[in-house]
Amino acid sequence: MTIFLGTGAMGAALTIAAVRDGGSAVVWNRSPQRAHALTRTPGVSAAEDPRDAVTAGDVIVTCLLDHASVHEVLDPLVADLAGRTVINMTTTTPNQSRELAAWAAAHDIAYLDGAIMAVPEMIGEPGSMIFYSGSPLVFGKHRKLLDRWGSSEFFGPDPGLAALSDMAMLTGMYAMIGGFLHGTAMVGAAGVPATAFARRQGPFLAAMAGQLAGYAATIDAADYTGAGQQSLRFTEAALSTLIESSADEGISTELIDPVRELVRRQIAAGFGDHGTARILEELRSSR
Amino acid sequence: MTIFLGTGAMGAALTIAAVRDGGSAVVWNRSPQRAHALTRTPGVSAAEDPRDAVTAGDVIVTCLLDHASVHEVLDPLVADLAGRTVINMTTTTPNQSRELAAWAAAHDIAYLDGAIMAVPEMIGEPGSMIFYSGSPLVFGKHRKLLDRWGSSEFFGPDPGLAALSDMAMLTGMYAMIGGFLHGTAMVGAAGVPATAFARRQGPFLAAMAGQLAGYAATIDAADYTGAGQQSLRFTEAALSTLIESSADEGISTELIDPVRELVRRQIAAGFGDHGTARILEELRSSR
Ligand SMILES: NC(=O)c1ccc[n+]([C@@H]2O[C@H](COP(=O)([O-])OP(=O)(O)OC[C@H]3O[C@@H](n4cnc5c(N)ncnc54)[C@H](OP(=O)(O)O)[C@@H]3O)[C@@H](O)[C@H]2O)c1
Ligand SMILES: NC(=O)c1ccc[n+]([C@@H]2O[C@H](COP(=O)([O-])OP(=O)(O)OC[C@H]3O[C@@H](n4cnc5c(N)ncnc54)[C@H](OP(=O)(O)O)[C@@H]3O)[C@@H](O)[C@H]2O)c1
Repeated sequence: MTIFLGTGAMGAALTIAAVRDGGSAVVWNRSPQRAHALTRTPGVSAAEDPRDAVTAGDVIVTCLLDHASVHEVLDPLVADLAGRTVINMTTTTPNQSRELAAWAAAHDIAYLDGAIMAVPEMIGEPGSMIFYSGSPLVFGKHRKLLDRWGSSEFFGPDPGLAALSDMAMLTGMYAMIGGFLHGTAMVGAAGVPATAFARRQGPFLAAMAGQLAGYAATIDAADYTGAGQQSLRFTEAALSTLIESSADEGISTELIDPVRELVRRQIAAGFGDHGTARILEELRSSR
Repeated sequence: MTIFLGTGAMGAALTIAAVRDGGSAVVWNRSPQRAHALTRTPGVSAAEDPRDAVTAGDVIVTCLLDHASVHEVLDPLVADLAGRTVINMTTTTPNQSRELAAWAAAHDIAYLDGAIMAVPEMIGEPGSMIFYSGSPLVFGKHRKLLDRWGSSEFFGPDPGLAALSDMAMLTGMYAMIGGFLHGTAMVGAAGVPATAFARRQGPFLAAMAGQLAGYAATIDAADYTGAGQQSLRFTEAALSTLIESSADEGISTELIDPVRELVRRQIAAGFGDHGTARILEELRSSR
């Protein structure tokens, strides 16, 4: 018996995947009709009150809007939750996950934090990837449930690690999308359709994504002087040419200027001949 | 007989690939030893003077440092170049390519501009991609030579288009690399090795690169209200969570802040429910 608090788009998908192979679930949702709608799925019953839901089982899955709503729902139930397990699938920052884990520990609640790298339609389907961190015991014991939702990966006992990895993955993604849109605007200024550009840029970026392992090896070795690295000085020149090109076409360079700024600060610090992966050191040191 | 002015790393690679199947070339280089070294390749002879080189054939390939060095080498030869063809493989901005094309036209020189999306080791090998723009006649007539260097693509008579497409492709690449390094710094703050992050981030970004065609279709249709688009409001919330997460870990957010800035300006302009590809409109309008 698994308890689900929050049956919005994602909570409903998690519930349905959990009972697909004959499991059973009790669901509660703030707006009752969303919980009731799920009782059409065999194995799912609805509770009118979150306390009734929580006391019906030992494993409580929360999938609510945000960190604040998790506290809003769980705080009044703290006595009932003692001795039980909370698996929190709500998106939070790493520090919010850590705060929830500390709160849980203080109240004798076992806590696992999940970060979902998928949309609801993907839950239980190939390609659904979910990160976890927090209690390794909870992860091990409930692995069968978790694997119903997607491929499960455990990052370690720091409860913030799943959320942090999620956020780091999205950082790369949004940066790439921003760069693609900038490139699209540049060629668009000369009349090239976005679809024509995407046909070339997509495979090119996919190929370049395959090269990121090389940067990673450099970073882990902390040796930015090894052979085959593109120097910061070379990168500065290349960025300057493309920034000038973009400005000439009347397209704002505000997304790429900060990359050159980081490069220039590292050059000013005396690292012009070092590899471009050294940008990372500047990101680490500038706060 | 093809003439090569500039036999640095790239010019040498172009020369060697051009004569591989029995062609012949005359090469000139400012530092003579680099030209002489190439004469070990069957079919290649060296000229001591750029005028001797240029008058030995009809097709002159320039591969020099930059726009200024092209003028420095070609300007004194302008009378000899009249009636001949220049294929310029030097990296330039689109406007520099346009300037060279206008200069060539004014002196009765046929002009094709090339932009090389490859390193010297890749020239003549699979995966070498080269963009061209300028004279369609030159592109058609010398296609066999060009195809010896890589897969050749002609963008149109605007001589700046090859360079512009090159610069736009690199913009996406550097943005992606910056985002990857930012993500790496975030997880690194919690002790996750870069190689571990790259193992997940690489395939994830490659998969996302496959989704860029969807953004492109939206842009060409100029309809940011169609179904299935992630709204600017949703993106703003996601970016805010990841920016907070990065700052919490002590990692500078300067690379991703400008993406959120663009999103916020579009929301302030009343487009919060529109798709995230609308960032492009802001890049277009902000200069
Ligand atoms: N959808 C995705 O693609 C996706 C992907 C990855 C992660 N996630 C994460 O999954 C979580 C849920 O997202 P969703 O897509 O299911 O959103 P949703 O459809 O909007 O559902 C939000 C849920 O939170 C509940 N809720 C909000 N505030 C509450 C409060 N103060 N007290 C009690 N319940 C409250 C809502 O109840 P009502 O029905 O009463 O409003 C609803 O059950 C979010 O953290 C989201 O970031 C979603
Ligand atoms: N290497 C790559 O991966 C790559 C990729 C794409 C595009 N490109 C482009 O290819 C072009 C050549 O690059 P490269 O890699 O071959 O560089 P390189 O090895 O440094 O060669 C530069 C060439 O330019 C010549 N040169 C420089 N200034 C000159 C001047 N004022 N007058 C006459 N000759 C001058 C050099 O002559 P000296 O030998 O006398 O110095 C040398 O032949 C550049 O525009 C570069 O952006 C290179």
